[in-house]
Amino acid sequence: MSEITLQTPATLLAHWQGHRDLTRRTIEAFPEEAFEQHAAPGMRPFRKMTLELSHMVDYQLNWLRTGKPQTEEGEEQTKNLPSRAEILKRWDEQTGELAAEFPKVSAETWLTPVDTPFGKMSPFKSVEYLIENEIHHRAQGFVYLRELGVTPPGFYERADVTQE
Amino acid sequence: MSEITLQTPATLLAHWQGHRDLTRRTIEAFPEEAFEQHAAPGMRPFRKMTLELSHMVDYQLNWLRTGKPQTEEGEEQTKNLPSRAEILKRWDEQTGELAAEFPKVSAETWLTPVDTPFGKMSPFKSVEYLIENEIHHRAQGFVYLRELGVTPPGFYERADVTQE
Repeated sequence: MSEITLQTPATLLAHWQGHRDLTRRTIEAFPEEAFEQHAAPGMRPFRKMTLELSHMVDYQLNWLRTGKPQTEEGEEQTKNLPSRAEILKRWDEQTGELAAEFPKVSAETWLTPVDTPFGKMSPFKSVEYLIENEIHHRAQGFVYLRELGVTPPGFYERADVTQE
Repeated sequence: MSEITLQTPATLLAHWQGHRDLTRRTIEAFPEEAFEQHAAPGMRPFRKMTLELSHMVDYQLNWLRTGKPQTEEGEEQTKNLPSRAEILKRWDEQTGELAAEFPKVSAETWLTPVDTPFGKMSPFKSVEYLIENEIHHRAQGFVYLRELGVTPPGFYERADVTQE
């Protein structure tokens, strides 16, 4: 099979930022109370899902900075969950931090699998997982929005989808 | 930024097949009647979503074979929707067809943007979009399953996630 390069750190970053922008608009589309409380049976409200997404970006940023993947203990036990405004504030900071860290990662590091709390994987596979985990939970947020009578943003409305 | 190769046609195919297998198990997890009828307000039942996913694979296969992206007219107007068994039968055929077609696509073709019914994009960006569209709708199927009292399969239970 062809060994052509389909994805590089630069295209991966642009792709992720496109998804993060769409997820940000999904967070904003929720009525305030429903963002914190509406949930399907056995599932979390969208606030808790997006808090997980934000924590996972911090996990990835920390890994890229230190070379070591590790989860912060007790972060899920936070009694006072951050508000939507606080989640979005951290979201926007992460946008710049990801843009700053990606170029610093060496070619060898990107594809070297290491032990992580989620199994053995390279930074590339981890970022791919985080993007897809974000798509997964955002899609569940889309169902919540429909159940709340709100039209979600377009799945395809992202900066890097078409190549005009 | 590093120009290292993060994704090749071979890794892209393995990744997609891992997702397609998880989606297949999600289809199987539905009670028969709910697969055809359960839906959130303003949304489709999972049968119609998975039928879209299957049609999009046919669209991509046809593009890879002919070099021309085009949608079949009227396919959404089918009066008699296929059963779950029929959808799964085509699903399994597509698994082999994708494995057969991917190696035949030239390096140049993978990254050359062309006009499609969904905007200008390369075969790579199209496949990436189809994988993510599948993750998106499958996640909505996960919400439906929870609403039906069924535990969905694990999002992370895919062949290519970890690299042991």
